Amino acid sequence: MSDLLWQKPGVAVDAQIQAFLAGDDVILDREFFLHDIAASRAHAEGLQRIGILSADELTGIAHELGTLADDFRSGTFVLDERFEDGHSAIEARLVDRLGDTGRRIHTGRSRNDQVLVATRLWLKEKLARTQALCLEAAEMALQRAGAEAGVPLPGYTHLQRAVVSSAGMWWAGWAEAFIDDSQRARDTAAWIDANPLGSAAGYGVNLALDRDHATQMLGFGRMQVAATYAQLSRGKFELAALEALGSAMLDLRRIAWDLSLFTSAEFGFVALPPEYVTGSSIMPNKRNPDVIELMRGTYASVAAAKSEIEHLLSLPSGYHRDLQVTKGALFHGFGKGLQALALLPDLLRRMQWNPDAMRAALDPSMYATDLAVDLARQGMPFRDAYRQAADPGRWEQGDPQASLAARVSPGAAGDMRLDALHARLAALR
Amino acid sequence: MSDLLWQKPGVAVDAQIQAFLAGDDVILDREFFLHDIAASRAHAEGLQRIGILSADELTGIAHELGTLADDFRSGTFVLDERFEDGHSAIEARLVDRLGDTGRRIHTGRSRNDQVLVATRLWLKEKLARTQALCLEAAEMALQRAGAEAGVPLPGYTHLQRAVVSSAGMWWAGWAEAFIDDSQRARDTAAWIDANPLGSAAGYGVNLALDRDHATQMLGFGRMQVAATYAQLSRGKFELAALEALGSAMLDLRRIAWDLSLFTSAEFGFVALPPEYVTGSSIMPNKRNPDVIELMRGTYASVAAAKSEIEHLLSLPSGYHRDLQVTKGALFHGFGKGLQALALLPDLLRRMQWNPDAMRAALDPSMYATDLAVDLARQGMPFRDAYRQAADPGRWEQGDPQASLAARVSPGAAGDMRLDALHARLAALR
Amino acid sequence: MSDLLWQKPGVAVDAQIQAFLAGDDVILDREFFLHDIAASRAHAEGLQRIGILSADELTGIAHELGTLADDFRSGTFVLDERFEDGHSAIEARLVDRLGDTGRRIHTGRSRNDQVLVATRLWLKEKLARTQALCLEAAEMALQRAGAEAGVPLPGYTHLQRAVVSSAGMWWAGWAEAFIDDSQRARDTAAWIDANPLGSAAGYGVNLALDRDHATQMLGFGRMQVAATYAQLSRGKFELAALEALGSAMLDLRRIAWDLSLFTSAEFGFVALPPEYVTGSSIMPNKRNPDVIELMRGTYASVAAAKSEIEHLLSLPSGYHRDLQVTKGALFHGFGKGLQALALLPDLLRRMQWNPDAMRAALDPSMYATDLAVDLARQGMPFRDAYRQAADPGRWEQGDPQASLAARVSPGAAGDMRLDALHARLAALR
Amino acid sequence: MSDLLWQKPGVAVDAQIQAFLAGDDVILDREFFLHDIAASRAHAEGLQRIGILSADELTGIAHELGTLADDFRSGTFVLDERFEDGHSAIEARLVDRLGDTGRRIHTGRSRNDQVLVATRLWLKEKLARTQALCLEAAEMALQRAGAEAGVPLPGYTHLQRAVVSSAGMWWAGWAEAFIDDSQRARDTAAWIDANPLGSAAGYGVNLALDRDHATQMLGFGRMQVAATYAQLSRGKFELAALEALGSAMLDLRRIAWDLSLFTSAEFGFVALPPEYVTGSSIMPNKRNPDVIELMRGTYASVAAAKSEIEHLLSLPSGYHRDLQVTKGALFHGFGKGLQALALLPDLLRRMQWNPDAMRAALDPSMYATDLAVDLARQGMPFRDAYRQAADPGRWEQGDPQASLAARVSPGAAGDMRLDALHARLAALR
Repeated sequence: MSDLLWQKPGVAVDAQIQAFLAGDDVILDREFFLHDIAASRAHAEGLQRIGILSADELTGIAHELGTLADDFRSGTFVLDERFEDGHSAIEARLVDRLGDTGRRIHTGRSRNDQVLVATRLWLKEKLARTQALCLEAAEMALQRAGAEAGVPLPGYTHLQRAVVSSAGMWWAGWAEAFIDDSQRARDTAAWIDANPLGSAAGYGVNLALDRDHATQMLGFGRMQVAATYAQLSRGKFELAALEALGSAMLDLRRIAWDLSLFTSAEFGFVALPPEYVTGSSIMPNKRNPDVIELMRGTYASVAAAKSEIEHLLSLPSGYHRDLQVTKGALFHGFGKGLQALALLPDLLRRMQWNPDAMRAALDPSMYATDLAVDLARQGMPFRDAYRQAADPGRWEQGDPQASLAARVSPGAAGDMRLDALHARLAALR
Repeated sequence: MSDLLWQKPGVAVDAQIQAFLAGDDVILDREFFLHDIAASRAHAEGLQRIGILSADELTGIAHELGTLADDFRSGTFVLDERFEDGHSAIEARLVDRLGDTGRRIHTGRSRNDQVLVATRLWLKEKLARTQALCLEAAEMALQRAGAEAGVPLPGYTHLQRAVVSSAGMWWAGWAEAFIDDSQRARDTAAWIDANPLGSAAGYGVNLALDRDHATQMLGFGRMQVAATYAQLSRGKFELAALEALGSAMLDLRRIAWDLSLFTSAEFGFVALPPEYVTGSSIMPNKRNPDVIELMRGTYASVAAAKSEIEHLLSLPSGYHRDLQVTKGALFHGFGKGLQALALLPDLLRRMQWNPDAMRAALDPSMYATDLAVDLARQGMPFRDAYRQAADPGRWEQGDPQASLAARVSPGAAGDMRLDALHARLAALR
Repeated sequence: MSDLLWQKPGVAVDAQIQAFLAGDDVILDREFFLHDIAASRAHAEGLQRIGILSADELTGIAHELGTLADDFRSGTFVLDERFEDGHSAIEARLVDRLGDTGRRIHTGRSRNDQVLVATRLWLKEKLARTQALCLEAAEMALQRAGAEAGVPLPGYTHLQRAVVSSAGMWWAGWAEAFIDDSQRARDTAAWIDANPLGSAAGYGVNLALDRDHATQMLGFGRMQVAATYAQLSRGKFELAALEALGSAMLDLRRIAWDLSLFTSAEFGFVALPPEYVTGSSIMPNKRNPDVIELMRGTYASVAAAKSEIEHLLSLPSGYHRDLQVTKGALFHGFGKGLQALALLPDLLRRMQWNPDAMRAALDPSMYATDLAVDLARQGMPFRDAYRQAADPGRWEQGDPQASLAARVSPGAAGDMRLDALHARLAALR
Repeated sequence: MSDLLWQKPGVAVDAQIQAFLAGDDVILDREFFLHDIAASRAHAEGLQRIGILSADELTGIAHELGTLADDFRSGTFVLDERFEDGHSAIEARLVDRLGDTGRRIHTGRSRNDQVLVATRLWLKEKLARTQALCLEAAEMALQRAGAEAGVPLPGYTHLQRAVVSSAGMWWAGWAEAFIDDSQRARDTAAWIDANPLGSAAGYGVNLALDRDHATQMLGFGRMQVAATYAQLSRGKFELAALEALGSAMLDLRRIAWDLSLFTSAEFGFVALPPEYVTGSSIMPNKRNPDVIELMRGTYASVAAAKSEIEHLLSLPSGYHRDLQVTKGALFHGFGKGLQALALLPDLLRRMQWNPDAMRAALDPSMYATDLAVDLARQGMPFRDAYRQAADPGRWEQGDPQASLAARVSPGAAGDMRLDALHARLAALR
C-alpha cells in the first residue's frame, strides 16, 4: 500500500489489522470512483474561487482528473490495494503528476464529506435508474392490460378460486404497482438531493468555501446545510434509497410468485420463452423457471442491505468507522436489485398466456358472488342474497366474458380506468 | 362470539382453531374502529347514490353509525371477543338496529377493502402526527441553535475529540434532521393517499359503485384504480409508512445516544430535569436517564414492525390470511414510535447544558485542524500543512469562540445559514 | 400508582413520562409473575440461610408468596397499573401483609437479577414446550410416513414436476425436520440453564448469598457465575431461545406453503377438515384454509421479535433501560409461535390425501431420471445416459410404485430408514 | 462459458439472463471448492463400492481430484466464469482428463446434494474456527480476570456510576460470555453434523448408494436420513450457524462499545497500542480506534446475512433457485465475522488499563449500596436502609479495595469463582 495520508512517523502498521480496516474498501470504491472524481473537480473549482488554487493549478487538476477518469474507464488505471481507498488514490495521482498542486486538493475537505458526496451522486443515479425501470415495467403492463382486457383468468384469494378475473385486471394491478414504485423512487431522489460537500469532517472549516457553487455545479437541488447533519445523514439516506428500491422489489417478489405458480404444470397459465428456462444436472426432463425464482429471491438481498445499515446506525453524532460498512451493503442491495429489475420489462413483454388453461380453471362456484350482488341489486338485502348464493345447488357454469363486462365498479374489468394510469405514468416520464 | 358472517350451515367451529384465527384481531380493531365507521358511512352514501339504499335507509344507517361511534368513544360500546372483528361488529350493530337495512350495508364491499380503507385513513392520521412532531422537534432545535450559537462544545469523530464545535452546530444538525424527517412523513402520506374502497375482494363487483364520490368524501387525494392493486398494496403501504417513521426514529436513536453520553458523569455536558430521571430498587444513589434510553430503544420496535411486515409479503397476488398479521405489527411500530417521539420536543426544550464542563473538555489538539488550514490559506500545500500541524509541539490552547467565528464554511459555526432551515421548516407547516 | 421504590423526596413525577417509562410493563409482567414469585421464594430461603431473615420470617414470606400466587391464578389479585411492575407488586404485597419482614425481601437483590431469573425460568418452560410440540409433530409425521410409504406423490423442484415421490417421503422429511427442531430446543434450554439470581445489579453485593442453594432450589443446571455476565446475557439468551423456536417456525412456514398449494384446486392433493376452513364476507362460495396461512405468517412474528431484541443489544456493559423492550418482543414471539405450533400435530393427523389427484399429476417426463440412472447402471457414462433420457421421445408413462420401490438409495422410498428417525425421536422423549 | 450440463439442443442462451442466473456463483464457489472436491472423492469411492466405477476408474478420479485441488491451491487452476459453477468445473475437469470415466462421476448425485455437502463441510470448519476463537478470547479474559482482580473500575448501569467494580469482574464477565459462545458454536456444529450426500435432487435415486460409507469417510456424525429433508435443511442449517456466530458477535459488539467509551478522553480508562489506531485525512491531531469500531460494526454484517437467508426460506418443499442466494449471504456473514473475531484475543491481550483514571472516577455515591446492605445485615429492613443510604449527606469517599473485598456474593469481586469458569473452558478445549 502507498503511504497512508494520516500515518504518524515511527508507528509501525500491523498487516492483519490493516487488512481488517481496509477490508475490500478500495475494491468497493470502484463503484463510485467516477463520482468521487467529479466531486473532486467541483471542489477544486471551489478552491480556485476562494484563492487556494490558481487558475493554472485548477486547469492542471481538472486535466489530471479527466485523465484519471479516462484511465479508470479504459482499465489503464486500476483501483486496487495499492491504495487505502479511492479518495487516497485520487490525491495520490494528483500529487504524483502535479506535485505541490496535488498536495493542495484536500484543503478544506475531509474523506468524510468526500465519501458523502460521491455516495450521494451515486444514489441519485441509481434511484433514477430504479424510477426508469419501474416505469418501463409499468408501461409494458399497461399496454398488455389494454390489449388483454377481455382474456379471462381465475381470480384467487387464499390461493382458492374466488371470482372470474382477467389478464387485463392482472396487468392493471402491476401497472399501478410499478407506477407507485417509480414515483417513490423519484420522491426519494428529491429528498436526498442535497449537497454534503463542504461539511468537511462534520464541523466545517475555517475557509469560506463556495458551497453554493459546488451545489450548482454538481447538479444538486439544494445544499445540505448543517455540517453536523451531513454526517448524521450517512446511512440514513442510503437506507431511504434502499427502502424505495425495496418497494419495487416487494412487487417484483409478488409478481414472481404469480409467475412461479402460473408456470407450474398444475396451473399451466403462462409459458416462458426458452431463454428464461434452465435444466438440471441430474434430471434430464427438467425445464426450470430460474429467472423468476431469482427475481423472487432478490428481495432478500435488499432486505439484508437494509438490515445491515439499520444495525450500524445505533451511534452518537459524528463519524464512526462502523459507518464504512454501509458502503458494501448499499452496493449489494442496489447491485442485486437493479440487475433483477432490469430483466423485468422484457420478461413481461415476452411471457405468453395459455388462455385455454385459464378458462378451464373457471368453475361454477366463481359466479356465486355475481349472483349474490345481482340479487342485492334487485332488492334483496345482501346478507340474505349471500346466503342464497352460498347454496351450491344454485351455482352453474357462467360466461366469463359476461361476468367481466358486468364488473363495472371503477377499476374492475367492466370499467378499468386505464386512462388514469396512463396519465400518472406520463407525469413520471 | 356472534354468528360468523361466512358460517356454513352444519359445520361446527373448533374453539382452539377459532382462537388462533381470531387472535387479538378484534382488540386490535379498536385502533381504527372509528375510521372503519367513517368509511362505512361513505360506502352507505355511495350505495344510496346508485340506488341500493333509499334516502331513508341512508339516514338510518348514518344515524346508527354516528351513535356507534359515540358509544365507542364513551365506552358504552366495547369492541370485544363477542365479534369476529370490528368489521363484523359494525354490520352486526346495523342489522340489530335496522334489520334488513343493515343487511344491505355489505353490498358491493368486502372486509378486504374495508380493512384497507380503515388502515389507510389511520395511516394518514399517524403520518400527519409524525410530520407534526418532527416539525415541533425541529423548531425547538432551530430556536436553540440560534440562541446557543456561541456556546462551545467539543466536536467528536470516533468518540475522540476532534475540533471545537458549538451547541449551535449540534442543534442545527438535529433541526435539519427532523426537517427532513417531517418532509418524508409528508411525502409518504401523499404517496399512500389513495382510496382502496370499492375494490371489494380485489376484483371489483358487478355494481357501478361511485368510487369518485367516496374518494372525495373520505378526503383522499386520488382513487387507487386497479382493484387488484388495492390488495397488492396491503402491507406495502404500511411498510412505507413505518419506514418514514423509522427515519425519524433513527435520528431519535442517535440524539438519545448523544444525550446518554452527555448525561454521564464522564462527559457531564447535559443535565435533565428530575422528571426525566428514575432510580434503582437496590442502589440508593442512582439517578438514571431512563427516558433517553427508552427513546433510544424505540427504534427496535419500529424495526421489528418493519421486519414483521416484510416477512409476510412473500406471496402471490390476492388476499391471504397471512396479511392479517400486518395489523398488529403496524400498531406496535407506530404506537411505540409516536409515544417516544411525542416526548422529544419538550425534552429538547428543557435539557440544560453545562458550559463549564463543555469548555473544560476542549484541549489544545482540537485547534490543530484550524492551524493546518490557516497554513494552507497562507499558501502552504495542505498535505504539508497537515504534517506540520500534526506535531504536538505546535498545539496550544486556543480561544474556542475565535475558532468558531473563523469557521466560515457555510453550515459551520461562522456562517450557520439558519435562515435556509427556517425557510424549509416554514414550508412544511 | 403505588409509591415507586426509588422515589426521591420532593421530586414530582410527570404522568406522560411515567406512562412512557412504564409502558405496558406491568401487564407484560403477568406473563412471568408466577416465576417471579417462585424466585422470590428461593431468594427468601437464601436470606434465611445467611441470617438476614429468621425462620419465622421465612415462613411468613413463603406463606404470603403462596397466597399471592393463588390469588393471581384465581384472579383475586390482578397485576395492573397500580404497580410500577410485577417486581414492585411482590414487594408491596409482602410489606402490606408482613410489615418490616416484607421490607427485608429485597436485601441483596435488584430488580435487575429479579427479571433475569424470572425470564430464565419462563424461557426454560417455553423451550420445553417447543421441544414437546416439535416432538409431537415429528411423531405424527413419522407414523404417517410409515403408513403411507407407498402412496405416490409428485416430487417437485422449482415447483416443476421432477420425479415420482411419495407421501411417505414427504412425511419422512418433515419428521426429521421436527426432530432436529426438537433437539435444538433441548440444546438451547441446556445452554441457557444457568441461574442469574444473586448477581444483583450486575456487580454482586456485600453479602455471602448462598447462590448454590438457590441454583439447586430453582432447578437450574448451573450457576451463571460472573455478576457482570448475568447482565450481559440479558437479551442474548432471549434471542437464542427465539432462534431455536424460529428453527421450528421456518419448517412450519414451509410445510404450510406445501399445504397451501396442495389444498388449491389446481393441485388438489389435500383436503382439510371443515374446522380448518373459513369463508368470505362477500363471496358465498369461498372455503379458505386460513389456519394454514396464519401458520405460515407466524414466522414473521418470530422474526420481528428477533429483530427487536437484536437492535437493542448495541450497548456497552451493564443494564440500560433499553433492555426493558426485550420483554414484549420475547412474549410476542413465543406467544404467536407456540400458538401456531400447538395446532400442527392435530392438523397433520387430520389432513387427508387425495391419491387420485396425486397420481394423475404424474406425467411420463417424471421417469426420465430413473431411465438415465438405469442406463448408467448398465454401463453407460451418466452424462451420455442423461442426454439420451432427455429425449422426450423416450419418455413413457411408468408405474409409480415400481419407481418408488427401485429408489433404493438410503433415505429414499425404497429404503426409507425410518428406524433411524424413530431412534432419534425416542432419545428426545 | 463451457457447455452447460443441462443445455437443450437448439436453444440459444441469452447473455444478460445467464449473467443474472450465474451471478457471482462461480466466484463464490471458490470458497468451498476444496470441500466440493473432497465430497466428490467420497462420492466416487461410493460409486466404486456399488460397481458403477471400476477400481482403476476410481484411482484415476481420485488422482485427478487431488491434482485439481493442488492446482486450485497453487493458483494453477482458477475457478472463474468459464464455468457455470464449481460443481460443473469439477465434472468438466474429470471429463477433460479422463473421458468416459469423468462422464460417470455425476451418476446418482445432483448439484443439489453436491452443494449441500460442500456447504455442510465448510460450515463445520467455520464453526470449529468460531469455537476456537471464542475460547481464545475467553482464555485471555480469564487470565486477566485473575491477574487484575483487585484493580478498581467504576461499575455502571444506565452509563451512570453505580458501584465500585473491578477490572477482574469486567474480564470475568467477558470470559463467561465467550465460553458460552464457544459452547454454542460446538453445539451447533454437532446439530448440523449430518451428511446430505446421496439425497440427489431431494428424492434419492434408483441406486443403492453406500451413504453410510460416505458419511464415515467425510467425518460426519450421522447421515441426514430423509432425502426430502436434505433439501429442507438448505438455508436452515446455514441460518443456525450464523446465529451461533451471531451470539459471539453480539458480545463482540458490546465489548467494542465498552472499549469505544473507555478509550475516549472523557473516560480515559484504556489505551490501545498504536497499531490499533488510525488518523484522519484532514485533522492532524486525530488518533482513532477504528479497529474497535469495525469490530462493533461487524454484527451488522452477520445480522444482514441472517436476514437475507430468512427471507429466502418462505417456500414450499424442494429446491428452488432462490436458495442460491443463501451462499453469498453465508460467506459474507462468516467472512466478516471471523475476520473481526480473529483480532479479538490479541486486542484483549494488549489493551492497557489506566488505573489512575479508573480510580479517579469512583465517587462517594458509589458506596451507598454497600452502606444500605451493611445496615440491612445489621438488622434494619432493607427498604429502610435504602432510604437512609439515599441521603447524600451519608455518602463519603470509601476504600475501593475494601468495597471489592467485601463483595462476597458468589461471582462478585470478593468471591469470583474463576475456577468454575476455568473448568468449563477446559471442557471445551
